[in-house]
Amino acid sequence: MAEFDSNKHQHTRYNLLQGQWVLVSAQRINRPWTGQTEPTKESNNKQDSLPGATSNYLAPGALRVGGKKNDDYKNTFVFENDFPALLSTGPDPPPPVHPLLVTAPAKGTCRVMCFHPRGDLTLARMDVPDILIVIEEWVRQLHELGKDNAWVQIFENKGEPMGCSNPHPHCQIWASSFIPDLPSRSDKNQREYFKQHDSQLLLDYLAVELEYRERLVAVNAHWVCIVPFWACWPYETMLIPKRHVLRLTDLTPDERLSGAEIIKILLCKYDNLFHTSFPYCMGWHGAPTGPYLETDCSHWQLHALYYPCLLRSASIKKHMVGYEMLAQPQRDLTPEAAALRLIETPSIHYLD
Amino acid sequence: MAEFDSNKHQHTRYNLLQGQWVLVSAQRINRPWTGQTEPTKESNNKQDSLPGATSNYLAPGALRVGGKKNDDYKNTFVFENDFPALLSTGPDPPPPVHPLLVTAPAKGTCRVMCFHPRGDLTLARMDVPDILIVIEEWVRQLHELGKDNAWVQIFENKGEPMGCSNPHPHCQIWASSFIPDLPSRSDKNQREYFKQHDSQLLLDYLAVELEYRERLVAVNAHWVCIVPFWACWPYETMLIPKRHVLRLTDLTPDERLSGAEIIKILLCKYDNLFHTSFPYCMGWHGAPTGPYLETDCSHWQLHALYYPCLLRSASIKKHMVGYEMLAQPQRDLTPEAAALRLIETPSIHYLD
Ligand SMILES: O=P(O)(O)O[C@H]1O[C@H](CO)[C@@H](O)[C@H](O)[C@H]1O
Ligand SMILES: O=P(O)(O)O[C@H]1O[C@H](CO)[C@@H](O)[C@H](O)[C@H]1O
Repeated sequence: MAEFDSNKHQHTRYNLLQGQWVLVSAQRINRPWTGQTEPTKESNNKQDSLPGATSNYLAPGALRVGGKKNDDYKNTFVFENDFPALLSTGPDPPPPVHPLLVTAPAKGTCRVMCFHPRGDLTLARMDVPDILIVIEEWVRQLHELGKDNAWVQIFENKGEPMGCSNPHPHCQIWASSFIPDLPSRSDKNQREYFKQHDSQLLLDYLAVELEYRERLVAVNAHWVCIVPFWACWPYETMLIPKRHVLRLTDLTPDERLSGAEIIKILLCKYDNLFHTSFPYCMGWHGAPTGPYLETDCSHWQLHALYYPCLLRSASIKKHMVGYEMLAQPQRDLTPEAAALRLIETPSIHYLD
Repeated sequence: MAEFDSNKHQHTRYNLLQGQWVLVSAQRINRPWTGQTEPTKESNNKQDSLPGATSNYLAPGALRVGGKKNDDYKNTFVFENDFPALLSTGPDPPPPVHPLLVTAPAKGTCRVMCFHPRGDLTLARMDVPDILIVIEEWVRQLHELGKDNAWVQIFENKGEPMGCSNPHPHCQIWASSFIPDLPSRSDKNQREYFKQHDSQLLLDYLAVELEYRERLVAVNAHWVCIVPFWACWPYETMLIPKRHVLRLTDLTPDERLSGAEIIKILLCKYDNLFHTSFPYCMGWHGAPTGPYLETDCSHWQLHALYYPCLLRSASIKKHMVGYEMLAQPQRDLTPEAAALRLIETPSIHYLD
């Protein structure tokens, strides 16, 4: 195997001031960055303009860069990311040359998952049975990638403001040998609470929300959607199963179905809020996997996090900039006011 | 005094999962948000289109919303933010209604500081003596606001991608009764290191950088500019005084002058990198103030952080989205490769 070269091989590095890790996907530096691979307008999409690739490279049957061809898929379709930020092989970093330059190994897999053959059909506009198929694919992916990886991050970047330049509805799955920083903090805080109270932090918190009813956006048979008391983004929400559930793979068929239903409700409300296809980042957090499948993770409660960037209209977004990047997140609209607006917003899509 | 109302009065809230605080500037909800106060294009600037306000409300002699008039200033000009995220008065939150709904009081002051009467003159294009005047104003502001506030965050949001819609060069100063989240983590990590090693984390780290010389962008008489080993943003840099300095107010006249010189060099390199007025967020971190002026803060080392968002060209930016917001920051370009590009980039401005 090649000798480790920090300018060529993936690894993580530790920020001594913030106590936080960064993933350095140095292997991507080797991929061709010629004029042609760079899009002309502001976007991070590297494939659209590549020679040989179909214009919507996520469409069924489309040719992707490097000559790979998408299946002629009928519902979801998953493929390995052509430019993965994480590879499953490669040399590990040696012990640091100096104790203040802290690195750690990073291995993993990156996949892309299309939600539906139709490039114009966002989750908000899909039928519940099709959303259910998406959830089932998430479960399958977590099951598969969770065998070897400590963390499987399923996330969706939706909309141009979220750096997504291909509007064909899709999400990504980055599975890693390590638990990334934010879930690792969440893990620690849930574990400490569990030790102290012998109950789950998020389930106890959910009980408080169900009692005070100030931040409930939607409730159905198996799920609750709330604006967290500590939300940072103006219309940030969290989806939580009512029952104690560790991972997506633990959801019952009924919970998956009502999960699809509550996602449909939330996303219709989002689109209706400013009469626009609402941009957001979302992702799932559940108990870690891989080696952690064999350990006690009962402190964990599965949840989905939605971080939409719009503030006051389809074109006015909240910028998390100077103060937020250097000091602390700040919001004007209270979580309670945001919840009220979301409650009052209809759940039938405005285009239906 | 009015009774505390969480929908009307500023406070902070605690994220139990992430162990992180958010500032809720609920008092801003009361300001008029009529059609007229909302800009039509994507921006967060609330004053441009206000009736009665001059189009560039930061210009000398301009009329700001509410009828306040700017001085006919000749170099820097500081005024209280017309829509402050922090007020110095107001009721404090009572003890939480439930232990899982954690709030804390927040008091403070928000100011805006123009760098120069000329609305087209960015710091990169200003002369060193004018940059020095800016540094001296920062020192004055820290001195003044640091008397009563635990933390004085000086920060600049530069460029439209950073949510700044008024190109007139300016920064902001948000002073608070509390140490915000990120500096508070930095404080903790510096203190722990100091306890263990009896030396400053950042000064020891600086010595390593000066030894390995892989990430040095510029060095002058009193300052060093590096791409931190753990940088998240593609061209992130840090400015550190060579000497142990706690706060901006502790800089000697010589250090202020050579600070102005190194800022000029860094910002010219930034602009030259992609031949554009380089967008970034920057801010100063130094030892806390207010009550902390009386405590031992020798673990601290002053530094400035620059977070530019561009990745590969004037129009291609790095989006810190899905994976970054839900898991951990990720970068492709290594800090060493970024440093090399910055070293090779001339420090004479391309427009000069
Ligand atoms: O104060 P401004 O320039 O209106 O607002 C900008 O900077 C603030 C502080 O970083 C952010 O909270 C806002 O989201 C951003 O738009
Ligand atoms: O993988 P994509 O869609 O090309 O890239 C997008 O999502 C990634 C994961 O959140 C980010 O690291 C990139 O900055 C962003 O542009």
